[in-house]
Amino acid sequence: MCGIVGLVSSGPVNQQVYDALALLQHRGQDSTGIATAEGRVLHMAKAKGQVREAYRTRDMRSLLGNSGLGHVRYATRGTASSEEEAQPFYVNAPYGIILVHNGNLTNTRELTRELNEVDRRHLNTNSDTELLVNVLAHELQQQVTISTDLDPDQVFAAISRVHERVEGSYAAIALIAGHGLLAFRDPFGIRPLVLGRRLSESGQHEWVVASESLVLEAGDYEIVRDIAPGEAVFISQSGELISRQCAANPRLIPCSFEYVYLARPDSIMNGISVYEARLRLGDRLANTIAEYAPTGDIDVVMPIPDSSRPAAMQVAQKLGIEYREGFYKNRYVGRTFIMPGQAERKKSVKQKLNAMSSEFRGKNILIVDDSIVRGTTSKEIVEMARSAGAHSVTFTSAAPPVRYPHVYGINMPTSNELVAHGRKIPDIARELGADHLIYQEVADMQSAIIEGSDITELEMSCFTGDYVTGSVSPEYLTWVEANQNS
Amino acid sequence: MCGIVGLVSSGPVNQQVYDALALLQHRGQDSTGIATAEGRVLHMAKAKGQVREAYRTRDMRSLLGNSGLGHVRYATRGTASSEEEAQPFYVNAPYGIILVHNGNLTNTRELTRELNEVDRRHLNTNSDTELLVNVLAHELQQQVTISTDLDPDQVFAAISRVHERVEGSYAAIALIAGHGLLAFRDPFGIRPLVLGRRLSESGQHEWVVASESLVLEAGDYEIVRDIAPGEAVFISQSGELISRQCAANPRLIPCSFEYVYLARPDSIMNGISVYEARLRLGDRLANTIAEYAPTGDIDVVMPIPDSSRPAAMQVAQKLGIEYREGFYKNRYVGRTFIMPGQAERKKSVKQKLNAMSSEFRGKNILIVDDSIVRGTTSKEIVEMARSAGAHSVTFTSAAPPVRYPHVYGINMPTSNELVAHGRKIPDIARELGADHLIYQEVADMQSAIIEGSDITELEMSCFTGDYVTGSVSPEYLTWVEANQNS
Amino acid sequence: MCGIVGLVSSGPVNQQVYDALALLQHRGQDSTGIATAEGRVLHMAKAKGQVREAYRTRDMRSLLGNSGLGHVRYATRGTASSEEEAQPFYVNAPYGIILVHNGNLTNTRELTRELNEVDRRHLNTNSDTELLVNVLAHELQQQVTISTDLDPDQVFAAISRVHERVEGSYAAIALIAGHGLLAFRDPFGIRPLVLGRRLSESGQHEWVVASESLVLEAGDYEIVRDIAPGEAVFISQSGELISRQCAANPRLIPCSFEYVYLARPDSIMNGISVYEARLRLGDRLANTIAEYAPTGDIDVVMPIPDSSRPAAMQVAQKLGIEYREGFYKNRYVGRTFIMPGQAERKKSVKQKLNAMSSEFRGKNILIVDDSIVRGTTSKEIVEMARSAGAHSVTFTSAAPPVRYPHVYGINMPTSNELVAHGRKIPDIARELGADHLIYQEVADMQSAIIEGSDITELEMSCFTGDYVTGSVSPEYLTWVEANQNS
Amino acid sequence: MCGIVGLVSSGPVNQQVYDALALLQHRGQDSTGIATAEGRVLHMAKAKGQVREAYRTRDMRSLLGNSGLGHVRYATRGTASSEEEAQPFYVNAPYGIILVHNGNLTNTRELTRELNEVDRRHLNTNSDTELLVNVLAHELQQQVTISTDLDPDQVFAAISRVHERVEGSYAAIALIAGHGLLAFRDPFGIRPLVLGRRLSESGQHEWVVASESLVLEAGDYEIVRDIAPGEAVFISQSGELISRQCAANPRLIPCSFEYVYLARPDSIMNGISVYEARLRLGDRLANTIAEYAPTGDIDVVMPIPDSSRPAAMQVAQKLGIEYREGFYKNRYVGRTFIMPGQAERKKSVKQKLNAMSSEFRGKNILIVDDSIVRGTTSKEIVEMARSAGAHSVTFTSAAPPVRYPHVYGINMPTSNELVAHGRKIPDIARELGADHLIYQEVADMQSAIIEGSDITELEMSCFTGDYVTGSVSPEYLTWVEANQNS
Repeated sequence: MCGIVGLVSSGPVNQQVYDALALLQHRGQDSTGIATAEGRVLHMAKAKGQVREAYRTRDMRSLLGNSGLGHVRYATRGTASSEEEAQPFYVNAPYGIILVHNGNLTNTRELTRELNEVDRRHLNTNSDTELLVNVLAHELQQQVTISTDLDPDQVFAAISRVHERVEGSYAAIALIAGHGLLAFRDPFGIRPLVLGRRLSESGQHEWVVASESLVLEAGDYEIVRDIAPGEAVFISQSGELISRQCAANPRLIPCSFEYVYLARPDSIMNGISVYEARLRLGDRLANTIAEYAPTGDIDVVMPIPDSSRPAAMQVAQKLGIEYREGFYKNRYVGRTFIMPGQAERKKSVKQKLNAMSSEFRGKNILIVDDSIVRGTTSKEIVEMARSAGAHSVTFTSAAPPVRYPHVYGINMPTSNELVAHGRKIPDIARELGADHLIYQEVADMQSAIIEGSDITELEMSCFTGDYVTGSVSPEYLTWVEANQNS
Repeated sequence: MCGIVGLVSSGPVNQQVYDALALLQHRGQDSTGIATAEGRVLHMAKAKGQVREAYRTRDMRSLLGNSGLGHVRYATRGTASSEEEAQPFYVNAPYGIILVHNGNLTNTRELTRELNEVDRRHLNTNSDTELLVNVLAHELQQQVTISTDLDPDQVFAAISRVHERVEGSYAAIALIAGHGLLAFRDPFGIRPLVLGRRLSESGQHEWVVASESLVLEAGDYEIVRDIAPGEAVFISQSGELISRQCAANPRLIPCSFEYVYLARPDSIMNGISVYEARLRLGDRLANTIAEYAPTGDIDVVMPIPDSSRPAAMQVAQKLGIEYREGFYKNRYVGRTFIMPGQAERKKSVKQKLNAMSSEFRGKNILIVDDSIVRGTTSKEIVEMARSAGAHSVTFTSAAPPVRYPHVYGINMPTSNELVAHGRKIPDIARELGADHLIYQEVADMQSAIIEGSDITELEMSCFTGDYVTGSVSPEYLTWVEANQNS
Repeated sequence: MCGIVGLVSSGPVNQQVYDALALLQHRGQDSTGIATAEGRVLHMAKAKGQVREAYRTRDMRSLLGNSGLGHVRYATRGTASSEEEAQPFYVNAPYGIILVHNGNLTNTRELTRELNEVDRRHLNTNSDTELLVNVLAHELQQQVTISTDLDPDQVFAAISRVHERVEGSYAAIALIAGHGLLAFRDPFGIRPLVLGRRLSESGQHEWVVASESLVLEAGDYEIVRDIAPGEAVFISQSGELISRQCAANPRLIPCSFEYVYLARPDSIMNGISVYEARLRLGDRLANTIAEYAPTGDIDVVMPIPDSSRPAAMQVAQKLGIEYREGFYKNRYVGRTFIMPGQAERKKSVKQKLNAMSSEFRGKNILIVDDSIVRGTTSKEIVEMARSAGAHSVTFTSAAPPVRYPHVYGINMPTSNELVAHGRKIPDIARELGADHLIYQEVADMQSAIIEGSDITELEMSCFTGDYVTGSVSPEYLTWVEANQNS
Repeated sequence: MCGIVGLVSSGPVNQQVYDALALLQHRGQDSTGIATAEGRVLHMAKAKGQVREAYRTRDMRSLLGNSGLGHVRYATRGTASSEEEAQPFYVNAPYGIILVHNGNLTNTRELTRELNEVDRRHLNTNSDTELLVNVLAHELQQQVTISTDLDPDQVFAAISRVHERVEGSYAAIALIAGHGLLAFRDPFGIRPLVLGRRLSESGQHEWVVASESLVLEAGDYEIVRDIAPGEAVFISQSGELISRQCAANPRLIPCSFEYVYLARPDSIMNGISVYEARLRLGDRLANTIAEYAPTGDIDVVMPIPDSSRPAAMQVAQKLGIEYREGFYKNRYVGRTFIMPGQAERKKSVKQKLNAMSSEFRGKNILIVDDSIVRGTTSKEIVEMARSAGAHSVTFTSAAPPVRYPHVYGINMPTSNELVAHGRKIPDIARELGADHLIYQEVADMQSAIIEGSDITELEMSCFTGDYVTGSVSPEYLTWVEANQNS
């Protein structure tokens, strides 16, 4: 999970990129980076932690220039070298390219071999972003001629080659030093990327591309459109935009998890309001609950703050049951320091949630969560409700059972750690300690999300096991699980 | 606004104090400090910013010892020296005392004069906490005898003198080096302080005192009771607790603003659940709304997240109007960097809140906020609702109009900046741009908060102008406003 | 070993204190601190390491005010808590006192007991400076009256009591908040302290007190005089100076080691030029060499840079032997990082010195060092000379054999680690591997240092075993060696 | 002025590179960088300031691997972007190359144009080192074939092309990721580079290349030889060394300034001991002094510590005049902090040198300095001698008059700032305020340095105006002075 943004402006962009990253902070909090282009000169700063902690005034002062890009990153567990894998990644030939990426490549083994043995390029980390920028650099190098300077046609030709060589999900933004900003999206448009425009006070076009539309709204940009699957957009330093479809068979199949959990509710992606998609997920879930659960004696419907609130509100309204907020979310979670001679503390959901017992005592509770992944949090929530005095607990999930790994850029545990992997629903209910357990149906999730839009397909592999890119074989999944890092 | 905690444990307290401060973070985010006692040796670390950012591993490793205390601070505007005013404050004679304080003293001018000219003690800052620890040290010094070591009677005698000399609000915790932990509360109990106990695995009593009970709950402490107004509690390093009433005429008059806005809903203070008090504030507000506002055409009731959610939920239920969450709160707000040659950005509520337009379009909205202070935020919220498409906006406040300064430890603007200062309600409505404006009645607020408890009086001076401590004269209020710092 | 400075100026002193500390850096490189007084407000910054590394711009900007003091410190081995022992030390009553100290107290056990059990003051560290400031504070507290503000008579009375209670060496400087700067020296004047004065551009007197006169010279101050043994000097914030003899039987017995090794050659202390004292040490040493060593075949005289250069130059001239510099001193010595799984490196004199082999090959070398303490360095130097090709090595020391602990503020190993402890000179020569070994005679050292001055006695206990303060008994020396910290 | 080192070892090299850089610290103190190769992965850390201050433990822990390189840098004035110009520089294709460089390229304008317009590589700074690594990378890229991995022949072919394209001075060391370490020197061998070898405990060859031989000596390496002009040496990660002459017409013309001033005296360069060269410079200077100066009444010969000591000692001996050290060098020079509202302090030689007045009073002084560049320091030294009481001051320079810019990597002021530029010696003497002024003759300097070696030519352009590389035209010198940066 990552968030990206790129800007071509008529004035300094450092604070604008910073502000955009703060708005995308929910997409990744482990590290962050900003790069800017000041004519031919690139400036970069990256650091661990949240945006607010990561940048010092002197970093910001060094980020000169009117175009720039930024990244927030959610690192995967066990990545010792995670600091060196912070984005953006830079290559100095041809032209100087600096790139940020949201997504996950699935043919990394083939690409690594090719780059090492054929292209003879250096890969300093295990990051798939370093692979992506090197493939792009190599293909752009092939286009270089002595007689002419960089031409957008050359850029688009290189992106076409990238689409041929690279598999997986990738929404990416790059600065090409001295030339402009390039944004492109994989041929299935799995990860989001939206384009915005505004006029500067002096009448110049200013452009933004970002993972979520709320960045545009906050900056008073007009939403132009989503970058299309397979499309590349090149914006020169002076603000001219040229775009081209660079994929052979583009097909829009966006990731369903953005709507279920990842994106902010006030974003619009691929023409679909995330907030309204969540309301519809609540509506459909209410139907399934009504059909399968004994709702007659339910006293209250409760969300797990913050992401399941819209679905829960809709479930309550549709079932005609009172909506109450019995869980309080603690916003300020501290660190655990390892002291010599002390054992490490157990992580507990109690650090993040607290139950208001007056809302639970003696009641039959229906809890709505956005999804159930490992199940450990859900289990603790059920326990918390019971020890606050709940008489019975019905647990519901606005998403279907998560049964397969997610390989397109959402961090998830391995199959064996998924509570729904290889289990039937009653077994899962027993595992969670819930009196009843209701999941959204797969078809309902799909129709709830795409209703009213032009979209016909969704990337739902973690629910169905069907992967859209060719390189995802059972052998690949086994390898990924053994070498977890994205 | 500050949060404090003190612990006497059977093992290292550094991580426990840290965790408690993270839970109290909502009470102050500008600076924080921790001190611990390791036998006779005191250790201290303080820094700017939130708990999570402020402490490094090496700070934590130096905070050795089984008793300790901590502080989170909300600094007042314009305090250039704010870093030097970070708590705790330390004096090395007698015995070595280190103290944290929540509240605000109101006879600071007299105390400063006495300490400088009579007691001949050094005050290095304008902090009233430095005054408090020096008065305590001076009075304890008067009790010192050559023949005997420190005795709790001496401590209680000193606290009695503190109550005689000091006016204002103060909940305070101190470590006396080599002896123990001292906690005391002003004779009106204006600011909260609650006592908890648990048994260690080895069967020893472990104690905690904290601003809010949720700290106790999170640490599996049993709530023993609130520290009484005027009472002092002394806990030796080995865990013996002795307490004594040290004030001549104690009277419990707790601050109403804790219930309205400051405290976390899952806290219980002075026997009153904050969450339930907020639900009751919603109930009473619903009555007033029903009486004075044209509610017939209201489509939805909306809270301003997070603090007005319980009241709003109750208003919706009681009025039988649909409850919807149309505002989304942005959790990650970045900093503004001052770049050479760039103008400073205007602060805007848009950085903190976003409106989901589908919930507003064409509707008549009833907004519930916890209180209205300056009115600038409320005005922006009304504008935001309108530009999201609201047909009409009724604005309601779960607290009465704030018309007077708060001098007991809640940071507030000067009178002239209060939107309700010297204005009638229709004028305020016009100022905010609201179609209708309904405030809670003062009597309703009081009865809502104290219902079902033993409390008969509440500190409500910012609503009524009646101050319980003698030193708060009109001349004092004028001086405070001219020399704003608490 | 420490260096101290105090300043009362007509403008900001932060940079002046900083510059003075850089000039005193040779007296201690482990930690440093600066405090300033801005009216009644004190500011302080302290940190580990050398002056150049320790202070950041923001530290310096916070050190406001026209009077101030500073400290550089040479920490003793094995002091885990050394960071908390960094100077200055502050007490807030009476008045607010902040103090720096060069020297070492010898009745620390008695003082600790009195302060804990009688004065009831808190000692947070094992630092004897914390003892000193607390004795001073306690005695000044006894002088406080309600009716009058601080009077210099009260200060001098307190210093008289300090002289009665405290034993050992102490040159100290303190700021008394809101009043002025106080400097005093123990009744034997063991450690140096010199007073300087200049006129500001506006005609105001500006004052400096410092460990060494070069600080005065660098700041264009006129040397007024050394602070006398037992004397105290009080300089008000506006520049009035009052001084008084506060000791019953003052007697000037300055530390000989300042002249032998510690002080910079361009300093004048107690009326004696350090440089010229070193030249005279060379003259006398030449006589002893001529008498006892076979000098006929010596080819060259060589110093160990930098401190023995003057003595060596004089030895060469007087013996009529060629003077050559065959050792090169490496100025930039790095740190040793402890890597997981790697053994610690052996410290070697090779990191600090290098031999130019052409100066050694086939020659008979006479090496002059300032003194021999542990002997390990001397032994390595002899080896280095031999492996550079020396035919024979005569090792000479401008100071007599160091046979006893130094308890007055020069860091030295315990007796057993002194190569001359309990050994005859031929045995020491064998230990060092030298062909011949000549030491300065004790009487010659004394007469060389004091020649031409008014001084009649020198503190030479580490050469003679005679200690001038009463508390230094064999039992004390045993205790010190077991609890090494100064 | 810079110092470089490279190591191929059988164990971790981080501490070894660090130690070597501390030994080379005299060659540059503005910034420093280290890179290591751990198989195919490169690690890098760079920072401002001296080696001792620049690296933290966590930097060192991240510098894993058994081969590595390092750099210390003397930044030129006015380089705002100097932090971004810190070395090493990295390019990721082909293979991954990371390079450090001592020297200065003189056809930077042509190279920049070619790289931008023909090779299409990105130059992010004005550093000539970035040019060098990009030319190397481009030429190595031309050698890449799909069928075979990197071969030393390819490397040597690329270096041959580098020699053809690049003009100026360059001693350089590079790591080629996954392959080995490469060291090469320009076809005139202007800047030094020496090769050393030792056997590890397990019998493996370990290699070092460094700017100065003292690094080898300190690490117990045997000096193998200097890298020849135009030669390239490639050492594989497993320790096999292959070398080849890659230049068409190599000719050894080393920089004379290394011997005059820059190098440490205990280094041997191009077969010449720096220390002995300086002694010989003293001998020849003595002859010239005897011929031209009235030496009859000179009382003492004095060096300016530390670099002119050998020459001065030799002048004294040869003229039969007493040698005295009257100047003391202050080792610890602090920083100047810019405080709001305060004027910047004048830099003065008094911060660095102090005069012992007893050595000057009433005497006729002959001062020996290594060279005279701007003349401002010399002038202050003459003044200092006079105000310390000197009767007359004869100033002498062990190097000839510096009259032309140095373009091969020694930082020097522009022509107009050179005191000898366009001035006759009596005019310079008047400028410096010296009674007499004697310079070394150009021919004497050359013969003194090369005596006893195989060298026949020296780079002496700053004394003679004759530059060995073709691109140094008057037009170039004018451009350099207008765009000072090396």
